[in-house]
Amino acid sequence: MEQIPFVRNAWYAAAWSEEIGRELVERWICGIPIVFFRREDGTAAALEGTCPHRQYPLALGRLKGDQIECGYHGITFGCDGACARVPGEQRAPAAMRVRSFPLHERGGLIWLYAGDPGGADPAKITEQWLGKPAWTAVHGTKILEGRAQLLIENLMDLSHEAFLHPETIGNSSVAETPILTEVLPDCVRATRLMKNIAPPALFAKFGVSPRIDRTQIAEFHPPYMVLTRATAASTEPGFPTLNFVVIHCVTPETATRTRYNWAVARDYALDDPAVSEAWQTGSSWIFDQDVAALNAQEARLQRLPADHIELSIPGDAAALAARKVVKQLAALERREAVIS
Amino acid sequence: MEQIPFVRNAWYAAAWSEEIGRELVERWICGIPIVFFRREDGTAAALEGTCPHRQYPLALGRLKGDQIECGYHGITFGCDGACARVPGEQRAPAAMRVRSFPLHERGGLIWLYAGDPGGADPAKITEQWLGKPAWTAVHGTKILEGRAQLLIENLMDLSHEAFLHPETIGNSSVAETPILTEVLPDCVRATRLMKNIAPPALFAKFGVSPRIDRTQIAEFHPPYMVLTRATAASTEPGFPTLNFVVIHCVTPETATRTRYNWAVARDYALDDPAVSEAWQTGSSWIFDQDVAALNAQEARLQRLPADHIELSIPGDAAALAARKVVKQLAALERREAVIS
Amino acid sequence: MEQIPFVRNAWYAAAWSEEIGRELVERWICGIPIVFFRREDGTAAALEGTCPHRQYPLALGRLKGDQIECGYHGITFGCDGACARVPGEQRAPAAMRVRSFPLHERGGLIWLYAGDPGGADPAKITEQWLGKPAWTAVHGTKILEGRAQLLIENLMDLSHEAFLHPETIGNSSVAETPILTEVLPDCVRATRLMKNIAPPALFAKFGVSPRIDRTQIAEFHPPYMVLTRATAASTEPGFPTLNFVVIHCVTPETATRTRYNWAVARDYALDDPAVSEAWQTGSSWIFDQDVAALNAQEARLQRLPADHIELSIPGDAAALAARKVVKQLAALERREAVIS
Repeated sequence: MEQIPFVRNAWYAAAWSEEIGRELVERWICGIPIVFFRREDGTAAALEGTCPHRQYPLALGRLKGDQIECGYHGITFGCDGACARVPGEQRAPAAMRVRSFPLHERGGLIWLYAGDPGGADPAKITEQWLGKPAWTAVHGTKILEGRAQLLIENLMDLSHEAFLHPETIGNSSVAETPILTEVLPDCVRATRLMKNIAPPALFAKFGVSPRIDRTQIAEFHPPYMVLTRATAASTEPGFPTLNFVVIHCVTPETATRTRYNWAVARDYALDDPAVSEAWQTGSSWIFDQDVAALNAQEARLQRLPADHIELSIPGDAAALAARKVVKQLAALERREAVIS
Repeated sequence: MEQIPFVRNAWYAAAWSEEIGRELVERWICGIPIVFFRREDGTAAALEGTCPHRQYPLALGRLKGDQIECGYHGITFGCDGACARVPGEQRAPAAMRVRSFPLHERGGLIWLYAGDPGGADPAKITEQWLGKPAWTAVHGTKILEGRAQLLIENLMDLSHEAFLHPETIGNSSVAETPILTEVLPDCVRATRLMKNIAPPALFAKFGVSPRIDRTQIAEFHPPYMVLTRATAASTEPGFPTLNFVVIHCVTPETATRTRYNWAVARDYALDDPAVSEAWQTGSSWIFDQDVAALNAQEARLQRLPADHIELSIPGDAAALAARKVVKQLAALERREAVIS
Repeated sequence: MEQIPFVRNAWYAAAWSEEIGRELVERWICGIPIVFFRREDGTAAALEGTCPHRQYPLALGRLKGDQIECGYHGITFGCDGACARVPGEQRAPAAMRVRSFPLHERGGLIWLYAGDPGGADPAKITEQWLGKPAWTAVHGTKILEGRAQLLIENLMDLSHEAFLHPETIGNSSVAETPILTEVLPDCVRATRLMKNIAPPALFAKFGVSPRIDRTQIAEFHPPYMVLTRATAASTEPGFPTLNFVVIHCVTPETATRTRYNWAVARDYALDDPAVSEAWQTGSSWIFDQDVAALNAQEARLQRLPADHIELSIPGDAAALAARKVVKQLAALERREAVIS
C-alpha cells in the first residue's frame, strides 16, 4: 500500500478534554510537533511545538499566563504564535514566530485544524454521538505504530471481526454476510444487515436473546473519522436491544504512527456502571487486538518491494473507496498548494 | 566484505524436527518470512508466511486441518499454497496464492528448498552424521546478528580457536600448524594435522593422554553447510581416542541475521550421558563466543566505507575459496534468472 | 544547523587518567574507534581500534606486554601500530598495521591528537587550571547523544542558565545582561559582567552576600574546548568571593555522539571536602540538564528539512563566531588533504 500524503486541510481529534490543562503537552499531528495547553480562561490553545531559534521543544518550557517561555533561552510566545519577548533584547523580531493552530472543543474532544487557518470552520467537524442528549459514552486512546490508512481500512471491512475478535464481537455471520458499499457526497458507507444470527460473545454477555438481528453501518468521513452505527436486536420479547455508535478518530502523528482516539456511545442502560465497565473493558481489548494486527501489517509493508502489486477481494470495496477519497483529497491539496 | 546475494537454489536447514508441530511457526530464510507446521499426518509443510491480501503474517492465523486461515480476514490456504477459501465469496481467486516450499526431513532436521521447486532434489542435501548408525549427537541453535558468510569463514579458519576458545578447544598448536586447502568439485576442504601436541582443555577433560595427535578437516559444502571432522588420538595406550563431527548449518534469515543450527556427533561413549552433557555444554559455550565475535565484526563491517580494501593472510585461503564459490553460485543464479 | 566535518588536526580530551590502565578500553573519537591502554612503564598508548584483517575490535583482544593480540585470529600489534606477529606465519606483512595516535597526559587528562602525527605539538593543548598550584578541581564525564557543536554553542551563550538551570547557577540577571563578544587570534571570548545582582541559588548556598558582582568569561578554544572563568564577589565584607574555572572538553565520538569531560577548578576552600562535594553534585546536576536539553535539540534537528533556515538573535553572536571558526578549520583541513 502506497504512503498517502497527509491531508492538512482537516480537523483532527488531537486530545481528550481532560488530557489538556495547565501543563504543556506535546502531540504530533501530520508530522508536526504541536504543544497544547489551556489559557487562564480555560480555553485550549495549540502552537507549533518547536522554538524557531534553536529547535528546542516548547513543551519542555514553562507556561506563564497565556504565554510559553522556551526552556532553553527563554524566548516567549503568545497564543497567536507571535514572539512576545527575547530575553536581553528590547524588541522581539517579527520573524521569530510559530504557527498557531485553530482548535475547537466539543463533546469531550479537542479538535485541531492542521491546514490554512482560513478554512477552519468548526461546522465541518463530523457530528458525533459524544455529549448527545440521552446518550452516554466510554472512551480511550490507542497508539498504532503504523500508517493511519491501515486503521481506516480495518474499520471499513468489519469481516475481520470474525477472525481477530472471535471472543467478543465477531462470529462467522459477520464474515459471511455481504456488505453494501455506497460512495456518498460526504462519506463512504458500508452496510451489513445480519438477520436471525447467533449473537457474538460480548452481546450474549449483555443478555440478548439466543438469536438476534444485527446491523453494522460503517461510515468513513474523510479524511480522519469512521463512525460505526450498530444495533443488536433480540428476536424474542423480554430481551434487550443494543443500540450503539463507535466513534473512531484516526489522527496521523507521523507517516507511520497514528493516534487512535475511540469512544463507544449507547442510548440504553445510561446509568448502569456495569454496562459502561463492560463496554470500556471489551472495547479496549478489541482495539488492542486491532492495533497489534495493524502493527504486524505495517512491519510487513515496510519490507515490500516498490513494485509489489496489492491483491484485493470484493469485500475490500468500501476500504478501497475510502482510500481513493483520501488520495484525491491529498492530491487536490498539493495541487492547490502549488497554484496558490 | 561485500554483501553476497542469497543463493536460492539450495536446501537450507530450517528447523529441528522437534521445533515444528501443530503450532504455526515463522522463520525467515533468505529474506523471506515462511510459516511452518505439520500436517495432520505428521509431515512438515512450509508456506510463504505473508497473506497476499493485506500482508498479515500467516503465523498469526490458525491451523485448521492442513490449511492455514489468515488471522485478519480469514482467507485460507492449503499446503500447496493455493487459496481454499475467501470468507463471504463463492470462489477463491487463482491469483490469491502463496509459495509452497519443498521440505525434506532427515536426521532430526527439516530442510527447505528456497529456489525453483523443480530443482528440489533431496539427494543434493549434504550427507551428515545425524541419525547415522553407531553415532550419537547433541545439537542446538544460535542466532547471529550478522551475515551468514561471517560464520562460514569463521569455520573455515579454525586458527581462531586458539584466541577465541582457549578455555575449551583452542591452544597455540591450532594457530601455529599450517592448513592444507583443497578446492574440490563439491566442497572446499581445509585440513590441519597436529602431531604430538598438548590437548586443549576440553579434550583433557575427556581424559585423553598428555600428548595427542589432533586432526581437523573442515569442509564447506556450498552454499550453507560446514562439516568439521575431527579426531583427538591419545599417543599413549589406555587413553581414549575422540572421533567426532561438528555439523554447522548456516541459514541466512536476512542479509544481516543468520540462524546457526549446530550438532556434534560422535562414535564413542554413545550411551554416556555425562559425555553428551559435556559436549552439549561445551559446544554451546564455544558457539556463543563465536556469535559474540561475529556480531562485533558485523557491527564494524556496517560502518566501513565503500572503498575499504580487505587485508588477508595466507591462513584465509580456505575461507576466501569458500567465499568465491558462494559468489559464483549467486552470480550464476542471477544470470539464469535473467535468461529464463 | 548543518553538520560540520570533524577537525582532525587537533588534540582531543580522550579520557581521564584513572580511566586507562592495563585493561583495553575502546573510545570513539572523530568517528574512529580507538583502543587505549597503558604500557608496562605506565605511559598511555592509543591505537586504531579495529584489526585490519577481519575488522574485529582490538579492545576485545588481549594486552600482552606492550602489544595487543587480536582476540579473533591472534594478529599482534605494537604500540607503533606495526604488526609484530601473524600466528602461523614467518613474517608479519608490512601492510598489516593500524594507526598509532600521539597522546599527551597532563593534569589528569589524556589528550589524543587525531590528525597527522607530525602536527602533534603538546604545546598546542590549551592551558587549563587542572593540576595548577593553589587550585583544586572536581571532574566527571557526560555522554551527549548529539553533535559536538550543540554543546559548544550552549556554552558560548550562558543566557540559558536562567531558564535551564534556575535551581543552581541561573537567574534573570544572566539572561538580561548583554555580553561582549571578541573574536581573538586564538579564541572566541564572550564576557558578561553583572554588577550588584542577587546571587543564584548555588552561590547563595556557598555563603556569598545578598548582593554580588558576578563575572562570566566564556572562551572557546577551537575546535574542542570551552573555558568558563567565573567570579562571584560578595559586595559586603565578611562574605566569600568565589573564583572558579569550568573546563569543558568536548570530544566528538561520532557525528551525533559526544563525550563531555568536564571539570570545575577553584582557588578557594582548597581542602574543604564539603565545598568539593557541593561543586561535584551541583555540576553533575547542571550538566545532566544541558545534556537532556541538547539531546532533545538534536532529535529535532534530525527531522528538519534540508532547506530549513535557522533564526538567530543578537545573543548568539559568540556561538555563531565559534561555529564559523570550526567550519573554517574543517574546510581548511579538507583543502589541505586534497592538495597534499
